[in-house]
Amino acid sequence: MKDALQQYLENAIPLVRAMQVGVTEAGDDRVVLEAPLAPNLNHKFTAFGGSVASLATLACWGWLWARLRGHGVSPQIVIARSEIDYLLPLTTRLVAVCPAPPRGDWDAFVRAFERRGRGRLNLDAVVEDVRGGVCARFSGRFAATRDLADA
Amino acid sequence: MKDALQQYLENAIPLVRAMQVGVTEAGDDRVVLEAPLAPNLNHKFTAFGGSVASLATLACWGWLWARLRGHGVSPQIVIARSEIDYLLPLTTRLVAVCPAPPRGDWDAFVRAFERRGRGRLNLDAVVEDVRGGVCARFSGRFAATRDLADA
Repeated sequence: MKDALQQYLENAIPLVRAMQVGVTEAGDDRVVLEAPLAPNLNHKFTAFGGSVASLATLACWGWLWARLRGHGVSPQIVIARSEIDYLLPLTTRLVAVCPAPPRGDWDAFVRAFERRGRGRLNLDAVVEDVRGGVCARFSGRFAATRDLADA
Repeated sequence: MKDALQQYLENAIPLVRAMQVGVTEAGDDRVVLEAPLAPNLNHKFTAFGGSVASLATLACWGWLWARLRGHGVSPQIVIARSEIDYLLPLTTRLVAVCPAPPRGDWDAFVRAFERRGRGRLNLDAVVEDVRGGVCARFSGRFAATRDLADA
């Protein structure tokens, strides 16, 4: 699933290649994405906020994609809204971690998706430095719609 | 100021070049940034959410940078938090517009900045398509700190 997600992101989103995003983990329990600092620098030689937010967005998007793909479903997934708190400057490789959402949220999403072919799900992520220091906290709301091919 | 902002962003932030961001306007009343769709695509052939958020972040950051630079001040500016609502898919060139904040907010920021050498300011932006349709609404909180060189 890790390689499938890597390939999908690289082929679909040019910025993934520009940011040099790599998929480190893609399991049911969490997705971890990483990116080197150099292509994601800002004017202060720390990670650019846009890169941090993009990596967190991709980690959450990737978790939902991988989780549904694991069930043989290939939905369309889009982000509806997000917020991010930048806590500390990030001065190393960027590491974005999206853990599985609370079980109740997931069950509600699955029920809606199975019943109506679409559902919405809140997913959180942190963006850390390589020592595990949390530099940003991200929360996004994602919408998934069943592809006609899956119907 | 438009050329100065363009040069600063391009030199400082590699992702600005990857996204092909161009500064269209950089005045006291607003900053407008644009980017072509091709390097900012997602898997649905619309604008990638990370690109949309990055362009809005840069427009707000750029407004504050240009406004202070116009007063002979070159502060360090960082983003503290942001939120974004993705309203519609964006299928054309991306246009991010950051208007000047309410006068009272600006005056309060200037007072804090002059008194303590630092201040915080909320800035909003919209990201539109080329027909002026609003595809995303962004709100960010920015912190500026006086450089020692300005002291």
